[in-house]
Amino acid sequence: MSKRHEIRLSGSGGQGMITAGVILAEAAGVYDGQNVVQSQSYGPEARGGASKAEVIISDQEIHFTKATAIDILLAMTQEAWDKYSHDLKSDGVAVVDSFYVKEVDRPGVHKLPLAQMARQEVGIEMVANIIALGAIAGITKVVTRESLEKAVMSRIPKGTEDKNRQALEIGFRLAAGV
Amino acid sequence: MSKRHEIRLSGSGGQGMITAGVILAEAAGVYDGQNVVQSQSYGPEARGGASKAEVIISDQEIHFTKATAIDILLAMTQEAWDKYSHDLKSDGVAVVDSFYVKEVDRPGVHKLPLAQMARQEVGIEMVANIIALGAIAGITKVVTRESLEKAVMSRIPKGTEDKNRQALEIGFRLAAGV
Repeated sequence: MSKRHEIRLSGSGGQGMITAGVILAEAAGVYDGQNVVQSQSYGPEARGGASKAEVIISDQEIHFTKATAIDILLAMTQEAWDKYSHDLKSDGVAVVDSFYVKEVDRPGVHKLPLAQMARQEVGIEMVANIIALGAIAGITKVVTRESLEKAVMSRIPKGTEDKNRQALEIGFRLAAGV
Repeated sequence: MSKRHEIRLSGSGGQGMITAGVILAEAAGVYDGQNVVQSQSYGPEARGGASKAEVIISDQEIHFTKATAIDILLAMTQEAWDKYSHDLKSDGVAVVDSFYVKEVDRPGVHKLPLAQMARQEVGIEMVANIIALGAIAGITKVVTRESLEKAVMSRIPKGTEDKNRQALEIGFRLAAGV
């Protein structure tokens, strides 16, 4: 039985979802040695403030490259939740930002203070996407912590290593508490 | 008749092909208002030093999201050319780095000094990917210059705006000379 994980990272345009998608894909593909397809699409259905990036991770070759039954969903805004949670599987894992996402129409959603911790502990909300990646990896184990850290370090602007390492640590800490 | 363009950007791991793919996709999708799917895959076939990012741009909704008949190919290294040029269409446009790609097995390939101009004129080879995007846009008109510049500016680290604007300018200048 092959294992296929479909992950969707969604939020508003400025929240770094595509960067997070590329980082997660590299953690799984380059460092964990899995088969991975990472994609984003733009079009009439993607108009508005919501943005998403998708990552499919499999131990088999990936022939069908669309994400249609989501195993792991991140929603950083209410609009992203409303727009992109419909095809989350019934046993899927959902992580949402507890400040920006107030209404979720299903039980078991992990509401985590991603943006708030980014602001308060790291001093910049911009790293909320990295906190989110840490939380997702910690909760689901879809990538190893070591690989995720390597991928984060290879993709961030020089000079921001400490803040991003701190963000990742916060994410894993949040995961440990769920 | 719908217009579909499949673009593959390939090079070695550190040459910023994925960043270039995301930028090109945002230029076409966010700023030019086209339908776009941008993707990268990782797996056994992607092992080794070569890296690629693909962008499909269409005036219609994109149902088939794999790139299988390439209209525009960028190859920044010989390995990338050898690995990723096989499904370039016979009337496709190929742009290669003239320093790193020495042998091409078809006529009409645009050999441009992308890395060399980056080093000599901008002072950092890292912007060769942005020069390449300018050259591709200038030669093929697959995205507008205005949209490409907006997308570049939204994706680069703060403080590197001037060097990237210069890189883009060099790319369009190279295109004007082909």
